[in-house]
Amino acid sequence: MTIRVAMLGCGTVGAQVVRLLEEQAADLAARIGDDVELAGVAVRRPHRHPDVPAHLLTTDATALVESDVDVVVEVIGGIEPARALLGAALRGGKSVVTANKALLAEHAEELFAAAESSGADLYFEAAVAGAIPLLRPMRESLAGDRINRVMGIVNGTTNYILSAMDSSGAGYADTLDEASRLGYAEADPTADVDGYDAASKAAILASIAFHTRVTAADVYREGIAAVTQADIAAARALGRTIKLLAICERVESDGTEAVAVRVHPAMIPRTHPLAGVGGAFNAVFVEADAAGSLMFYGQGAGGAPTASAVLGDLVAVARNRVVGGRGPGESSYAALPVRQISQVDTRYHISLDVADRPGVLSAVASVFAEHDVSIAAVRQQGRTEDASLVIVTHSAPDAALRSTVDKIAGLPVVHDVVSVMRVEGEEP
Amino acid sequence: MTIRVAMLGCGTVGAQVVRLLEEQAADLAARIGDDVELAGVAVRRPHRHPDVPAHLLTTDATALVESDVDVVVEVIGGIEPARALLGAALRGGKSVVTANKALLAEHAEELFAAAESSGADLYFEAAVAGAIPLLRPMRESLAGDRINRVMGIVNGTTNYILSAMDSSGAGYADTLDEASRLGYAEADPTADVDGYDAASKAAILASIAFHTRVTAADVYREGIAAVTQADIAAARALGRTIKLLAICERVESDGTEAVAVRVHPAMIPRTHPLAGVGGAFNAVFVEADAAGSLMFYGQGAGGAPTASAVLGDLVAVARNRVVGGRGPGESSYAALPVRQISQVDTRYHISLDVADRPGVLSAVASVFAEHDVSIAAVRQQGRTEDASLVIVTHSAPDAALRSTVDKIAGLPVVHDVVSVMRVEGEEP
Repeated sequence: MTIRVAMLGCGTVGAQVVRLLEEQAADLAARIGDDVELAGVAVRRPHRHPDVPAHLLTTDATALVESDVDVVVEVIGGIEPARALLGAALRGGKSVVTANKALLAEHAEELFAAAESSGADLYFEAAVAGAIPLLRPMRESLAGDRINRVMGIVNGTTNYILSAMDSSGAGYADTLDEASRLGYAEADPTADVDGYDAASKAAILASIAFHTRVTAADVYREGIAAVTQADIAAARALGRTIKLLAICERVESDGTEAVAVRVHPAMIPRTHPLAGVGGAFNAVFVEADAAGSLMFYGQGAGGAPTASAVLGDLVAVARNRVVGGRGPGESSYAALPVRQISQVDTRYHISLDVADRPGVLSAVASVFAEHDVSIAAVRQQGRTEDASLVIVTHSAPDAALRSTVDKIAGLPVVHDVVSVMRVEGEEP
Repeated sequence: MTIRVAMLGCGTVGAQVVRLLEEQAADLAARIGDDVELAGVAVRRPHRHPDVPAHLLTTDATALVESDVDVVVEVIGGIEPARALLGAALRGGKSVVTANKALLAEHAEELFAAAESSGADLYFEAAVAGAIPLLRPMRESLAGDRINRVMGIVNGTTNYILSAMDSSGAGYADTLDEASRLGYAEADPTADVDGYDAASKAAILASIAFHTRVTAADVYREGIAAVTQADIAAARALGRTIKLLAICERVESDGTEAVAVRVHPAMIPRTHPLAGVGGAFNAVFVEADAAGSLMFYGQGAGGAPTASAVLGDLVAVARNRVVGGRGPGESSYAALPVRQISQVDTRYHISLDVADRPGVLSAVASVFAEHDVSIAAVRQQGRTEDASLVIVTHSAPDAALRSTVDKIAGLPVVHDVVSVMRVEGEEP
């Protein structure tokens, strides 16, 4: 039998999938054990796709999904109509390969239930970190291990902007404009710069890592719009750089095991492997009990890299059809509670402009003590009219750190809170 | 049904597998969809394994394999009796998980045929790069892509020795002694230092990357015993360091596609990600058409990390038993010819002591020209009695480079060939 594939959408990624399906047809057939045939491509404006054979193009995605196809590949993005189409496909027993992180981060439960009802496969390696094999290794290679933490750079646009701010000395707004002009940021960059894209990916990573249902709403999210050149300079002064990190971790609170998932800018040491990760690249650290630290690095976006991940999944689901069997379904058996960031231990870097007179450090330090936050390092530097005071804390609950900063900002001796940023990637 | 597991061998890795099987029992059952039970552990000297329940220990591996078990986990290592035992297990329909790189590099064809005959699974993620998910991503995540090159550090002992020689300035023999004393090298270090271990892993990587049967005998192999402090110093003078690399690549020769697989020490730039990989860690770059460059990094050896990979495979084969289906079998459909290293393009770094008089460079350069080898860079430095001449070539067939070096060594103006080393990881 020939495996018949329906494509929903044909943008940057979809066009590469179509190209590779054709170019690699013989290889794919050998790896699957049967031929693969593109049965149709649903698009909104067929005339915009001159590279796709006209008889394959259709505007009726619903009819295509309901036709005699074995696998549905979805690269439309967004919640609707992808959600309805993939739900119908899965309920109809068609296997699904999707790159849709937003959909997976919101409606994984519903989609997996649909897949379960008909015994179909649902694969989505391309939804996180583009070409980097990450979900399959976490879900399958580490299936006998216990993942404790996942930390990585999973959004290229913000990584480009932060890197550019670091090297050029320009501010956030100017750098974002430049990034848009060069095509590194979308016309509406909200999903990237406000961290929604990274939060969706973090939800997916956490769900798989901890066998727990985590949705985008469970993810604490801070974007990069508030990152200033003062933050960058403060980081540089301490041999650090700023990256937007997605962090998924197991936490203990009151003797109960829980998970916490967050996306926010953080200072990391310039010597940290993530510090060297450039614009279009993504890198993710996975820490497991037995395996120790693992790092996965590669292109996190782009048509061809993402298409590589889509096709890897396509071969897997097609092969499952040929030889029988199924990939793993949703695994949420652990059902751990999700902790808010306020309860999670983090470390802060705080840079202040303070009055240049004796007793200031003591006044500031007493606020930390009051909130039970321990100070790891202090650097004080006199200037003409005021002094600069830089404090790095030990780990403490995020809520305590925030309250500390709020109270310090109100001290009469504190003229300005120059920079407040979490610190990651180093031992306290 | 309960999945019954037989363990063959119980050394460093095996003991960790037994421990994790017990500690993670509930998680494993949830991920597999059924319980896993250790049915027996075959060892040579049962009294040496006080941590394993006595009723599970047996000295009769054959009887254990032939008993009512579903999965056989092999961590004995070496060719026999592992080969006979796993052949019997696979023919008897038992799935096999093994960490045995030597066996896979020699007898993969026979083992896969046995697996095929009964529909059993044969998984071996732990055979290459310990805990790092590498084989599964290459075989499955990149199944829709075309891998062109794999290059990595896959042996911890040699990596420890080369790193120590670089930082201490000590010679090879002293460093090896020290490594043995500290437990980083085996009592008989031949398999590691002569590159046999890396060559087995390279054969396995190449087989999977290129869908072609590659055995250890197909791999060009040079160990690190001939690496001198002069080589290390020559590398350092040019901002490079020396690593033992396993390189698997697609090559074109006479318009025919082929593969070449080699293990040898090479100079790489100190800025290259592989330059920073320390002792027990391994890292592997994979370059694919659509995915671009990917890097996988983690612990390449050790009981717990290797056990993590074994258990990942165990979950996969057990799950296949529960839900039906099978993992991918041997994929050697491409059957590309294997090229000898003499036909492969490489680059050389050559450091010479030469007479300090005019015309020397011209004499040396003419030998390169004669062999059609193009020079990329030359550095000449006068000293008291002779001069030092360092040459880095462009890419040329390895055979031409060797002939060039042989002929240069015989020139009257050349007093000594101080260091000859291939160069990798940078653009010419």
